[in-house]
Parts: sequence; C-alpha cells; structure tokens
Amino acid sequence: MARGPPRPARPLGGAARPGRPGEAVWRALLDSLLADWPVEEEGACRMYLTRGSGQDRPPTALAVLAPVPAETIRQRAEGISVVSLGLGVPADFRAAAPWLLGGAKTLSYAVNMAALRHAHRLGADDVVFTSLEGRLLEAPTATVVWASGGTLHTPPLETGILAGTTMARLFARAADDGWPTSVTPGTVDELHAADAVWLLSGVRGAATVHTLDGVRRGDGGLSARVQDLLCR
Amino acid sequence: MARGPPRPARPLGGAARPGRPGEAVWRALLDSLLADWPVEEEGACRMYLTRGSGQDRPPTALAVLAPVPAETIRQRAEGISVVSLGLGVPADFRAAAPWLLGGAKTLSYAVNMAALRHAHRLGADDVVFTSLEGRLLEAPTATVVWASGGTLHTPPLETGILAGTTMARLFARAADDGWPTSVTPGTVDELHAADAVWLLSGVRGAATVHTLDGVRRGDGGLSARVQDLLCR
Repeated sequence: MARGPPRPARPLGGAARPGRPGEAVWRALLDSLLADWPVEEEGACRMYLTRGSGQDRPPTALAVLAPVPAETIRQRAEGISVVSLGLGVPADFRAAAPWLLGGAKTLSYAVNMAALRHAHRLGADDVVFTSLEGRLLEAPTATVVWASGGTLHTPPLETGILAGTTMARLFARAADDGWPTSVTPGTVDELHAADAVWLLSGVRGAATVHTLDGVRRGDGGLSARVQDLLCR
Repeated sequence: MARGPPRPARPLGGAARPGRPGEAVWRALLDSLLADWPVEEEGACRMYLTRGSGQDRPPTALAVLAPVPAETIRQRAEGISVVSLGLGVPADFRAAAPWLLGGAKTLSYAVNMAALRHAHRLGADDVVFTSLEGRLLEAPTATVVWASGGTLHTPPLETGILAGTTMARLFARAADDGWPTSVTPGTVDELHAADAVWLLSGVRGAATVHTLDGVRRGDGGLSARVQDLLCR
C-alpha cells in the first residue's frame, strides 16, 4: 500500500483561535520536513501543539516525521494475530465516569502498552479489549471493525472508546461506495463468526485479523476493498 | 506536625545489584541537597533511579528536594473532604489482569489526576475509589485506613491496589503499641459508620477525612494517636 504522508484527522490548525498557528504555519513545517525525505520511504508524521512555554507565551507547533516501522508495514501486509483481554469495566460504565478518561487518546498509555506486552508474551501482535460483559471495545491504539451480513460494523462510542478517525474515513467511503455500515454492540463470538475482522488505525491502516484468540480466520476476500477505500 | 525529610520506603539503593548506586551514593546526594535547605521549612525529597542513558551505561541516580506545598500542609492539619468514585472494575478482577496495572504506582497517573480534578469540581479535596460492587479500593495517591471496633482497617491488596508504605509503617507501629490492625474488605457505608477515616500517604501523612460524600464526620479523637505513631 503506497501512501503519501498521512492526512491530518482534523483540518490543520483546528478552529481559528487566538495564538494558534494557522494552516500556513503547519504547511510550512511539513514542507520543511518533507524537503529532504526520500520519496521511496513511507513516513509517519506526528503533529503536536503545546500550551506554550509559560504565561502569555504562544503555543509551540511541533512536527516529527519518522520512517514507518518495518513491523507496522509487515502487519499491514500480512495481517495480525489478536487476543481478547478484559478491561473489567461494564460497557455502559465509562460514559458516566469521566474520571476514567474513556475515549481520551494516549491518556491510558500505560495500560495500553502493558496489554500489548501481554499479547506479545502470548505470541500475538495486538489486543481487542472487551467489557466486563464481554462486549467489544477497542484495541490499545486501533478501532475494531468487522464485516458480516454484507455490512461493516464497529462498536458504539457509548462504551467509552476512542472515536477512530481511520474508521470514520472508511465508513464514510464505504457508504459512498454502497457498502452499508452500522454501529453495533458485538462480542468476541461475533468476531469469530464474522466474514472479516480488521483493526484500523492511522499509520498501520487496516490490519487484517488472521488469528483471534489462537483461532485462524479468513477475511472473505474483503480486505482488498477496505484498503482500496482507505487509499482513495 | 514537624518532620524531617521523609524516610525512603525501602532501604536506600535497594538490593545490591550491579550498576546500582549503593547507600553511600544516595546519602551523598541527599546531603548535598540538604546543605542549603532552610531548617524551618518542610521539604519532600523524591529519589529516582533511571535505567541509564543507553546500552551498558550505568543507571542515573537523581534526587529532587522541594518545599511541601502549603495545601498539603493545610490538608494534613485541617483534614479533607472526600468523594467516592467508582473505578468500574470488580474487586477481584485486577489481580488476574496484569495488563490493567493495578498496584503500579504512577502508571495510572492520568486517571488518578482526572479523578482528583473531578473531586475538585465537586468541592472536595480527594477521592476514594470503589470497585464495581462498591468495595473500598484506594485514593489516587493514598491508602484508605479506618478505625472501627477498636481496630485499624485497610482494604486487601488482592483488589489490585498499591501497597501503601505509610499505611504499612502505621500498622507496624500500631501493632507494637497494642492497637489491633486488620486487612478488611469494606464499603463506603462502613466508612460512614467508622470512628475515624484517614487517607495515608508519604508527604501528607495521615489526612483526616472530615467529610465523606458531602456528609460531615468526626475522628473520635483518634487522629492525634495516628499522627503520633507515624512520627515515631
């Protein structure tokens, strides 16, 4: 999958607010990074906006461009083995418990990384978190999407998961392409029964789940269409 | 409560391991910090040991001495208002789910800080986390201790909470002093019914809970004895 530098999840610079750099600042920053970047190498760019270094100091805009790790490219091409791990929380609990920071990216970094390390010890590449009742939530840094009955499915945000921007892009383009989409509470059993399962994230894109809790599974030939939609 | 610099939770330098600084290194580091410290000001010292700056580089020992915040001293002297917040996880779940990092200090920093901000919005100083069934767990940076029936109580570690070193010191000295101690599963209702409730942590010491979920409560005159035991 050849791709240019990833598109930002939101318009560059966000809403116009005092002190925030506008799109021109971000574009200039990216142009300076890309000037020396080898055209044949895939890079991932992360853009940061700080609160500024002190009182009345403007925010600092920062962009870091780095090669996409070989392991990420391998997982995108060959698919991934995933284990389901319980998060221990009822599916409807986090929506009413803002102090648990459900949906706040990177803030549960330590637990996310510990879950990935646990998966690696089990010989798997990634994790699907489940609620206390066994409802599907999300992966540590990706959104769960599955195909069944001719429809693309993803779990509801009310479970406290992050609103995945890559999933949103896929669903918008699938709908334009005549592929129905649905926000669906699901279980690990429903993933086992699905035609295909993917973990979606910005840099890796759609990683096909070829093994779930040790059980091999297919993708019904649907991964090519998903990856094509994401590349449009 | 006048106290010197806090004692380390474990013997300085820990177990003798290759590359780890010994007690003499830590002592010299502390002495250099204390040389210019005003004797009338209470300070808190945090000691860090890194993994080293690279392959085959020795660990770096770091100590930071800073004044104890006035708010911490106020809370120690005047007591605190606490709200109970659900962590959403069954009391026995975290012990079998190492990826949730129960008991790993600072690793759940973001949720702990979000819970404190939530408490502040409610007009409270601190939080007691409860399990999904309403069992007592811990505070974001402190251990829950309560007195009832002539005994000091604290929740079991099997709930995934941090083993509090200040609580351990209090319990050891209380036992020596003839005050029975017990590891007891408790509920918020049992805190309401208790003779006294404290949150115990290294710098603040024993903070008396004078308000729990908006309900004023006393300490049965027991806080003086707890603070005396901690100062021994």
